[in-house]
Amino acid sequence: MAASNYVSGKPLSACTIAIAGLGLMGGSLGLALRGQVRRVIGIARRAETVQQALDMGAIDAGCTTLAEGAAEADIIVLATPVSVILAQIEELGRLAGQGRLREGVVVTDMGSSKAQICAALERLPASVQPIGAHPMCGKETSGLEVAEATLYQGAPFVLCPLPRTAPQTLHLMGELARAVGGWPLELDPLRHDRLAAAISHGPYLASLAAFAAANDMAAGDELAWRLAAGGFRSTVRLAGSDPTMMADILLSNRAAVLAQIQQLQSHLAHVAALLTADDAAALRDLAASTRAARSLFLDQYGG
Amino acid sequence: MAASNYVSGKPLSACTIAIAGLGLMGGSLGLALRGQVRRVIGIARRAETVQQALDMGAIDAGCTTLAEGAAEADIIVLATPVSVILAQIEELGRLAGQGRLREGVVVTDMGSSKAQICAALERLPASVQPIGAHPMCGKETSGLEVAEATLYQGAPFVLCPLPRTAPQTLHLMGELARAVGGWPLELDPLRHDRLAAAISHGPYLASLAAFAAANDMAAGDELAWRLAAGGFRSTVRLAGSDPTMMADILLSNRAAVLAQIQQLQSHLAHVAALLTADDAAALRDLAASTRAARSLFLDQYGG
Repeated sequence: MAASNYVSGKPLSACTIAIAGLGLMGGSLGLALRGQVRRVIGIARRAETVQQALDMGAIDAGCTTLAEGAAEADIIVLATPVSVILAQIEELGRLAGQGRLREGVVVTDMGSSKAQICAALERLPASVQPIGAHPMCGKETSGLEVAEATLYQGAPFVLCPLPRTAPQTLHLMGELARAVGGWPLELDPLRHDRLAAAISHGPYLASLAAFAAANDMAAGDELAWRLAAGGFRSTVRLAGSDPTMMADILLSNRAAVLAQIQQLQSHLAHVAALLTADDAAALRDLAASTRAARSLFLDQYGG
Repeated sequence: MAASNYVSGKPLSACTIAIAGLGLMGGSLGLALRGQVRRVIGIARRAETVQQALDMGAIDAGCTTLAEGAAEADIIVLATPVSVILAQIEELGRLAGQGRLREGVVVTDMGSSKAQICAALERLPASVQPIGAHPMCGKETSGLEVAEATLYQGAPFVLCPLPRTAPQTLHLMGELARAVGGWPLELDPLRHDRLAAAISHGPYLASLAAFAAANDMAAGDELAWRLAAGGFRSTVRLAGSDPTMMADILLSNRAAVLAQIQQLQSHLAHVAALLTADDAAALRDLAASTRAARSLFLDQYGG
């Protein structure tokens, strides 16, 4: 094959990046990468989205099919919901088999769960360089309209190289992470999923449950909403997350999420037991130790 | 009794206000009321706190015993934790019986639960004018250091007049609420407690459980904290609330809080069931309807 078909060894600045999915994450990635890479090609289902991304300056060029957008790419980033990522990985496998992708093309993603996606990446043909990724950032609002070049600043950018991933691929993705202001962090996919369940997926469900319970009350007495203050709004903020994205994430990380739900249930049951027992001292201790642990976390990792 | 001993009929500007408890709420009330009332007297357990409040301009004068501070008061505001409020109401009853309070003195509070406190207020001698209150505002940080004159701006200021509360007392407390920027809202104590459980006490426990579950994970793998982003911090913000205050509130509103814990558990169990059944559509619908209801709430009541 011609040398120009070999991706490995290219610095990031010489790479053509294809981004599939031009929502908050994909759009922000394009905004952050343009000018730092050779070319950003956007892929979206609708031509209107492609045009919007062009107008915003998030991409240099765009199209509405994965096949077209991926053909010239050195790095393909799948920034779609998890279930779509899985389908696109299959499609990329077929394209690679037909010789319609560059030899050694890097295929990565931004999915919020990693084990299922990395298992699918593992099955890609040998001509592809797969590596799972998950930048730990976002907003609860979604869509291209809210994309920002600064989204990745300071965000941990998890990288999950597979056993088959070449060192240069990991290096290139590290370059990409740093280029958008993130800091690359290599993690085993299962470990990522366990941790993400605890500090992201579980908290989403706690927010959801808190809002739903308040909503039930408000359905019987609308005055509930008038009394809701800043603390309530803070607790339920995550309940505004994109539903399709969240449903996908939860299902793709089911075991770890179910374990976290059990943890949440256990802590709530513990409080209920202390209340039932009228144990003021134990309740105070629980509240105090939780607050202290939170203060420690904020001191060490920032508020 | 001398006419000057009769409180009823006095406008707020002519009133001497005694504030027991010079933390965030009591301190902020003093800051907001000074200049709008005849005099603000602060009561705290420690002389250092009284001095601090004087230095901050939160009070005109101060002392360390309820008896001393309440003697000249036209309005006594109990801004202490719920269990202390209950003890102070008993003490005020004794002081009233000894003729050591002004005839017709208004006794009110800032406790975050109302039914138990209103039941105690009901038992005060006839020479006292009791009325429960709860301004719906605060911060998760506590203490006089973080008191602000603007704390009550725009906050619903719940008033729970008892059957025995004179109309002028309700009117005077409405004046006080508006004087600090709040808007007075008359509520039955049980209704207040039900609603507060749904939009405040339950969400506190959801925050607590979310943090505790994440903390359990971090205890086994500290990397968890490195991955925690803004959404997590938002969800667990309420877990920083004052532990003594929260334990008191939860116990004093036990029945309603237990009902809310059941609601939280029910919603979490529902999600777990959908996950176990691999029901993507139902999960998406649940996430979508919750998000939509939250958007509606924010549109109508502000974000």
